[in-house]
Amino acid sequence: MLFLESKVQRIQEDLEVMARHTATPGQGVTRFSFSDEDRLTREYIKERMKQCGLMVYEDTAGAIVGRRSGKNDQAPVVMVGSHFDSVKNGGPFDGPAGVVAALEIARVLEENQVMTEHPIEFIALVEEEGGRFGGGLFGSRAMAGKVSMEELMTYNDKDGISMAHAMAKFGFDPDLIGSAARDPRQLRAFFELHIEQGPILEATGISVGIVEIVVGITQLEITLQGRPDHAGTTPMDMRADALVAAADLIMKIGRLAKSAGNGTVATVGKISARPGAANIVPGNVECTVDIRSKKEENINFVVRGIERELKLLMRRNPAISYSMMCKLAIAPVRLTPRIIDILTAEGNDRGISTKLMQSGAGHDAMVMAGLTEVGLIFVPSKSGRSHCPEEWTDYLQLKQGVDLLLGAVLAVAQKIT
Amino acid sequence: MLFLESKVQRIQEDLEVMARHTATPGQGVTRFSFSDEDRLTREYIKERMKQCGLMVYEDTAGAIVGRRSGKNDQAPVVMVGSHFDSVKNGGPFDGPAGVVAALEIARVLEENQVMTEHPIEFIALVEEEGGRFGGGLFGSRAMAGKVSMEELMTYNDKDGISMAHAMAKFGFDPDLIGSAARDPRQLRAFFELHIEQGPILEATGISVGIVEIVVGITQLEITLQGRPDHAGTTPMDMRADALVAAADLIMKIGRLAKSAGNGTVATVGKISARPGAANIVPGNVECTVDIRSKKEENINFVVRGIERELKLLMRRNPAISYSMMCKLAIAPVRLTPRIIDILTAEGNDRGISTKLMQSGAGHDAMVMAGLTEVGLIFVPSKSGRSHCPEEWTDYLQLKQGVDLLLGAVLAVAQKIT
Repeated sequence: MLFLESKVQRIQEDLEVMARHTATPGQGVTRFSFSDEDRLTREYIKERMKQCGLMVYEDTAGAIVGRRSGKNDQAPVVMVGSHFDSVKNGGPFDGPAGVVAALEIARVLEENQVMTEHPIEFIALVEEEGGRFGGGLFGSRAMAGKVSMEELMTYNDKDGISMAHAMAKFGFDPDLIGSAARDPRQLRAFFELHIEQGPILEATGISVGIVEIVVGITQLEITLQGRPDHAGTTPMDMRADALVAAADLIMKIGRLAKSAGNGTVATVGKISARPGAANIVPGNVECTVDIRSKKEENINFVVRGIERELKLLMRRNPAISYSMMCKLAIAPVRLTPRIIDILTAEGNDRGISTKLMQSGAGHDAMVMAGLTEVGLIFVPSKSGRSHCPEEWTDYLQLKQGVDLLLGAVLAVAQKIT
Repeated sequence: MLFLESKVQRIQEDLEVMARHTATPGQGVTRFSFSDEDRLTREYIKERMKQCGLMVYEDTAGAIVGRRSGKNDQAPVVMVGSHFDSVKNGGPFDGPAGVVAALEIARVLEENQVMTEHPIEFIALVEEEGGRFGGGLFGSRAMAGKVSMEELMTYNDKDGISMAHAMAKFGFDPDLIGSAARDPRQLRAFFELHIEQGPILEATGISVGIVEIVVGITQLEITLQGRPDHAGTTPMDMRADALVAAADLIMKIGRLAKSAGNGTVATVGKISARPGAANIVPGNVECTVDIRSKKEENINFVVRGIERELKLLMRRNPAISYSMMCKLAIAPVRLTPRIIDILTAEGNDRGISTKLMQSGAGHDAMVMAGLTEVGLIFVPSKSGRSHCPEEWTDYLQLKQGVDLLLGAVLAVAQKIT
């Protein structure tokens, strides 16, 4: 069998062009969905797709789809793609790396005149990050039929523009959002390449991570209510300092994650202390806790531990009270073993080192796993950084991921199952 | 000797009228200097002063001065007063309690036709809180000749209006600020009544606190620089979480204050974690530390301890660095023992329970101590609360403070020294 190969120059060029479409030049990539930068990138992607003979359309959620016919064009479709929106002041790879991988695979198939059994769809999704409207995973959720008109009315950007309004202004009819849903019976598989966004591949010197499981995520919002006393006149032992209580909790949360094991992580990423003056004891603290693990029981262990710590805290200082709300609870998602095997075999055949991994971040592939068989691969992130202007993946490393993905897509698309 | 006495109804009425002059009705007293609320309160105070036959003028810093002649009108003046500005959403007592005490003393002297040896000045100062321009202790610092035109140009309110501009618009000539300075040789003493702003008098059931020493204050600004990693993809042991480091520090700061002893307090009142998203490990934390003690060596003990902890922190995780800046360093101020004795004797004579205290908050009296002999007394704060709408002092308790102050002012003003 002929090993088809991607060309690194083309990958690099696509990524460099897309990185220029940013609302924050010089301060990383800011490409919010349904913005001018979305429009410019979208036109570029559509043009590239057309150049490889794809039948290009946009679904009612704003995803770009480039379809390549199969010998058996009624057979369920093999999809490959990712998203092209970014966070605020993000990097050039998170999302676009997977879109460019899809473009490059389409080009390689076209220039080699490959005819697959299954049709293939090259996909570029939007609002995965939730950078503009706060929801996230939008394009894939729309394909899964999980976005309602109500959601489009509810989510607003920072200027108060609803998603429905932004879509309509951009040229999509929000009333038709339901039509973006795909029939699982018409799907064969979904492949996604993404940057790791973590330090593990770089640290281990392995080229490609094959994701076995996307971790479950629980996000809590905790409020600690104490008393905002004068910082000069209130003795240390007469205070109800909500920030000292929060500090205690933050230390404990780290320990709980470590003792949960299985790579469980827990993060307090957001904190506010009120009234927030140097000379006033903080009377109120709000913070988030993000807990992720491949095992739900590990997440629950941390959540229960936090509740126990909060109760102990209140017992030690009854002037402090708390509330805890669960804002998000996503169960771990196990990806398709058969696809994982194909990806692993492809790595072995091509001499590309691979490693089974968990994904600590949510991805469109996770949502698509509710519809069809899914494969998700990671390429290394320099210093593990992402969502920042410094986000970087070596183009040659990215090419290895594209080659592995190309092989796996072909392996699935060429065999009618 | 006749014990002159204040009238609680008049004290209450004055405070109730002044509390109505707020920019935030229903949400506490917000009375910024050189605002409409300042104007209304100022007119009220001046009117009340005139009603007791005082010679009323405003100094070039905007302080209201009501002068009562003495038998020996060339003798150095005895001053009594406080400030009438407030913090944002503060209470009705912080400042005005001492201004109303002065007004009531003037009334009692007038209705009893008391003629003192020394002239007495009843004083209402502004911008003590720094609520609008951020500086604070403005009226007394101007009297001490410590405010320059440069400072008036430097401090801006939240709308970018400089203090100089605000004063000019209000009717004071900022170029004349230097003329507010008082010649120490022409001052005999300064008396101030203030609410405690702490829980000690209430907890001990004592009526009046006599301040021996105003604590020293050191304020630090600490920045912890870590790395903003993805909260899902970065293992716990590969993080440089600036907020976890800050939490550790906050816990240590509390312990350092306690082991410093002498009632030393230390507070982290303000904290920000960036980038501040639930799913990103905080890469940067900025926080303030406010340290107060009656002994400078105790403050230094805490500062050195914080530096030691920061260095240890960096050694444990070299990916975290820090910077520490000293934003404020005020030495403790010891008030005048002779005046303290007079205040104590007055309490004993009148059967008002008193207690020697330290002041954990800065007050105009502290600044005036650089000019003349100073007495500062506290009345109880309900639940120790201040700088909030709930700030409260029982009017009868306030009256006890006014009576004690009246006696002490008379004792000093009637004797030519």
